[in-house]
Formats: sequence, structure tokens, C-alpha cells
Amino acid sequence: SSSTTPITATMFPGDGIGPEIAESVKQVFTTAGVPINWEEHYVSTEIDPRTQSFLTWESLESVRRNKVGLKGPMATPIGKGHRSLNLTLRKELNLYANVRPCYSLPGYKTRYDDVNLITIRENTEGEYSGLEHQVVRGVVESLKIITRQASLRVAEYAFHYAKTHGRERVSAIHKANIMQKTDGLFLKCCREVAEKYPEITYEEVVIDNCCMMLVKNPALFDVLVMPNLYGDIISDLCAGLVGGLGLTPSCNIGEDGVALAEAVHGSAPDIAGKNLANPTALLLSGVMMLRHLKLNEQAEQIHSAIINTIAEGKYRTADLGGTSTTTEFTKAICDHL
Amino acid sequence: SSSTTPITATMFPGDGIGPEIAESVKQVFTTAGVPINWEEHYVSTEIDPRTQSFLTWESLESVRRNKVGLKGPMATPIGKGHRSLNLTLRKELNLYANVRPCYSLPGYKTRYDDVNLITIRENTEGEYSGLEHQVVRGVVESLKIITRQASLRVAEYAFHYAKTHGRERVSAIHKANIMQKTDGLFLKCCREVAEKYPEITYEEVVIDNCCMMLVKNPALFDVLVMPNLYGDIISDLCAGLVGGLGLTPSCNIGEDGVALAEAVHGSAPDIAGKNLANPTALLLSGVMMLRHLKLNEQAEQIHSAIINTIAEGKYRTADLGGTSTTTEFTKAICDHL
Ligand SMILES: CC(C)[C@H](C(=O)O)[C@@H](O)C(=O)O
Ligand SMILES: CC(C)[C@H](C(=O)O)[C@@H](O)C(=O)O
Repeated sequence: SSSTTPITATMFPGDGIGPEIAESVKQVFTTAGVPINWEEHYVSTEIDPRTQSFLTWESLESVRRNKVGLKGPMATPIGKGHRSLNLTLRKELNLYANVRPCYSLPGYKTRYDDVNLITIRENTEGEYSGLEHQVVRGVVESLKIITRQASLRVAEYAFHYAKTHGRERVSAIHKANIMQKTDGLFLKCCREVAEKYPEITYEEVVIDNCCMMLVKNPALFDVLVMPNLYGDIISDLCAGLVGGLGLTPSCNIGEDGVALAEAVHGSAPDIAGKNLANPTALLLSGVMMLRHLKLNEQAEQIHSAIINTIAEGKYRTADLGGTSTTTEFTKAICDHL
Repeated sequence: SSSTTPITATMFPGDGIGPEIAESVKQVFTTAGVPINWEEHYVSTEIDPRTQSFLTWESLESVRRNKVGLKGPMATPIGKGHRSLNLTLRKELNLYANVRPCYSLPGYKTRYDDVNLITIRENTEGEYSGLEHQVVRGVVESLKIITRQASLRVAEYAFHYAKTHGRERVSAIHKANIMQKTDGLFLKCCREVAEKYPEITYEEVVIDNCCMMLVKNPALFDVLVMPNLYGDIISDLCAGLVGGLGLTPSCNIGEDGVALAEAVHGSAPDIAGKNLANPTALLLSGVMMLRHLKLNEQAEQIHSAIINTIAEGKYRTADLGGTSTTTEFTKAICDHL
């Protein structure tokens, strides 16, 4: 427990299993005495005219005001012309870097036991520009946009992250042998920033080679920084090395000091409401949020409790081969605190 | 040995270790009595004005005439404005599909022992259009082009391949949730072709999820078909699962019945000329060429000899942890024939 003034943070429980895993986070945080008041916001079933999306104006304002939030999975309502809720959040809140630590969990065996890397993904442009059109019948094109501003910004974030987290190397991932201008600009920006961090080793790795090296020997990598789509691909690949998106945290960093931590797995409607969901990814994302808030003591306590519960193996949810319910697993973590 | 009229095939030994591994293929093929006469062509040190590239006019004519060839690694000479030799070959010879079988080699242990899949990559368009420009200072764009014609062509190739090779499933890999028009057109074409092959199961997998599934459980996949860049990434990832590009074959298919088999690894200048190179990828590519020529008996004989030599483990090159020279390894394969 702590005597600091409570911090207000936004919580998007999200859809499907979202509310159950959000409940788990709230319980664990309360047990650990984390001084946070949650402002909860759900995705609306109707379009809010002020945001032109299913995200309400109040929910976006909440994140802007609190500058910190935690987000569960959000399934985008089906229908034409709606932007993905996740993309809308990235855009509206200017969440320019997606940070995903990826490390082997002690006691949870995969084919790899030596993974400890961080992917940092440019989150606002590149292949996600949304600019596409039909040139003539049967010929379509998409625009990939790379800007100096967004590239410098994410490169700066990556090097600063490496420096402040005791990391030794930053690898910029690219395909500049083919996309010489776009990925070339991205690399140029990374090189510029690298010069300001002589203590961090800088290297450039072509994306196809990077994926091959990752599956052969992920220990070769430390911090990886890359344009949007490569980040999308490589962060999921890396999650796969240690067990999947149910176990890996993520945090989105915005320009105005905003941090929105997020479980990037799906909303799993098939098991929603059945007390079967694994809250680990959202819990670990919550830990990233606590570290961002410099609540390091509680962050480490909760982190250890999660890791130890999984490592002991007595309480595990079905996705990890166990038989525990969400509430049993959550209680086991609380008992470790 | 065989009494058929010899077939003429083009051989590009390539650079670096290329000539040594090409020599290995020639020896193995001769020992197996393969009825092939090789027309050898090297990359020129000067630009041929008729092709505007370091590839000579004669070498391209040779492939066009023979309709079949085998290619070692080609390092693109450094300097501005030269297209990669590999890309030039794809373009000049209209090599629209890159086929890469990827399977676990008995006796060569990696983290995976259950890989048996085929990646089929669209090889002519997409992110490789070469169309890029600076919009304003600090803002650059690349065009990704997807056409109905090229998408149908590669989809047709993939389904036909699945059907004629006893494969059960084709997975189209995409990011149509983001690139709805380009990847959407690619998927639409795959669906159209899928309807003509009701005996083949068809599915669509988003590329990030595909990469995660591949590293978690590659046995989930059978034949994968995809646009150019995704194919570049996923084929290397898959090669990594079974040991890397030194062990995996590849064949490029052209519209006019042309087949150019190719080792896709680099030219390894550091070990060139030292009799240390592993010829396996080029040998297995040669086997793909033989199957394309319907020389199935010799193809299977040579394939078994390569696999058995590696499985026995007595003769292995340094990249596989052995101490054999290229010629010793080659002789071991010949002894198995
Ligand atoms: C759902 C999808 C639009 C999203 C993306 O491509 O960014 C997801 O894959 C992610 O990584 O958050
Ligand atoms: C060398 C490079 C241009 C090439 C590509 O990107 O296609 C290579 O990675 C390949 O897969 O053959």
C-alpha cells in the first residue's frame, strides 16, 4: 500500500473476454495497493457524431486528460466504412510507437528459452496510410508513406528506450534494397539518431533475413525498431516464439506523454463470459503502465507474482494447458503478492 | 544412365561460392546419368547495352531458348542505378511465381521437426513495383501495385501445384484488413480460383497471425500463396525453421513454360574459393528442375542421395557443424547414387 495521491487512469475493458480480464487487473492492482483510480469507458454500440466512430468523445477525452490508460481487446463492429477501433485510437491519440517486450516466461516451455527482446513499431503511417485506389479495372495501388518526422520520432524513442532500459543494441528492420526511398528514409533517420547514442550499437537488418534469424536464434536481437507493417509482422512472430499474444504485453506511446497499454490479442467471443480467459497479457500490459507511471515497486511486485504463478504451474488457464478459471488464476496471483 | 536425347539447360553459376556449388551439381548430375547438357553463362563485369544490365543478352536468350535453367547466387555489382540482377532476371524472363518447398531434413535437427510446406510467392509486382517518389521534403511514398492478372496467375499456379502434388490446402496470406483494395483484390482472385478446385481446402490468413502460427506450429500449413513482399518474408522465415537458405531449394516459374531453379542464399564471398561451401540448396534446386523436366527417376535418386548423406552426418560442411569440404560432401552424395 502507498500513501501517494491516487492517479487517475482510463480503462477500456473492451469486448468479448475484455471485461473479465480487466476485472482481473483491477483485483490484482487493488491487492498490490496500487494507487490508481480507474475511469472506465466502454465502446459504444452507436457512432458518436463528435468522433465519427464507436469510440465516444468522453473516452478519448479521458485518455487525453489522464495521459495514461489500459485497454483490452476491441472487436470492430462489422459494416462498411468503419475504421478499426484500434487504428482510430492510434490516430486520434497520436500513438506513434508501439512497444512490445517479448521474453521467455520461466516455467512455460516453448521451442525457445532464450528470448528477451523489444520490438518498437512505428504506429501511425507506412503501409497503414489508408490511401488506396483502383488505377484501371484490375489494377489497384496502395500508398506507403514514410515521413522524416515520424521516423525520427520512433527512432528517438527506440534509442532512448534502449539507453534507459540497459539495452545494448538497436536493429533497424527494413527492405531498403527494394524500397530505397521509403525504407531508405526510415534508415537515414535511424542513422541520424544512432549518432547521438554512441554507447548503443546500431545495425540494419533486412526484414526477410531478420525473420529467418529470429526463428533460428532470437538471442541475436535486443531492441528492434521498424516501420508499421514490419512491426505488425515481427511483433506477432516474436510473440509466437514465447507462446503467443495471450502472454505478451504492449504499450502505445503518444506524443503528448500519453501511454496506452494494451493487450493485443483478440476478444475471443467463443469463450467470453465463461471465466476461462487468460488475463496475463492485460496484466503484463498493466505492469508496463505502472512502470511508465514510475510506480516501479508495485510494478515489480505484480510482475513477479504473475511470473511465479505461471512458473509454478499449479494454476493455469486452458490456453496454457491448465484447468483454472480466470478468477482462480487471478486469486493465485493475488496470493503471491 | 539414360538413352534419351540430352536436354540443354542454362546454368548460371553466379558469383562467390557459386562456381563451386555449380561444379558440385554438375558432378552429381553426371554421376546420376542425368541427360543434360549445360549452357554456362556468367554475369558480365560490364553492362551489356542490349539488356542494359550486367546480364548478357546471350544469357537471357539461353534461358528463353532452353526454357529451363539453374542459377547460383548473384551479387549485384555496387553502384547507383543498377537493378538487382535477381530482379532483372525475374522481370526479363517474366518469372511470375517463386516456389519454395520447405521441409525438415531427417537427421539435421532444428527446433522444428514437423515442417512440410510450400510457399508460392507472386514474383513480379506488389511492393516491388519500383515506383517511389518524394512528395515533399521529408515525405516519401512507395506504390504497391496489385493486378488481377498477376494475382489470378499465381493463384492458379498455387492451386494447380496443390492438386498435382497431393496437397490438401491452400492458404492465401494477406493484410486485407488494412490494405483492403490491394490485398483485397489478391484475395478475390484467390477465391475465384479456389472455386475451380473444390477438392482443395482454401483459407485466408492475415500475415501477422500467419507468422505467429508458423513459429508456434508450422504443421498447420500446407501450401501458402501470397503477394511479393509477404512471400519474401515468409519464405525466409520458413527456411529458418528447417535450418536456413543453405538447405532450401527454390524454383521460379515463367509464363512461357520457363523454369529457373535457384539457390536463394547469398554468394558468401568470405568463403568463396575455399572449398567450404554447402551445395545443398543448389542441388535441391537442381532436383526441382529435374522434376519440372519430368526426369522423376533421377530427381528422386539424387534427392535421396542428398538427404541420406546429410542424415548420416558423416560428411557435412562447416555451416552444418561438420568439417567436410564441398568436394568431400559432393563425393559422399555421388557414392550414395
Ligand atoms: C487488427 C489490426 C488492424 C492490427 C494491426 O494490423 O495493427 C493488429 O494486427 C495489431 O497489431 O494491433
Ligand atoms: C535480394 C533481394 C532483392 C531478394 C528479394 O527481395 O526478392 C531476395 O531477398 C530474394 O528473396 O530473392
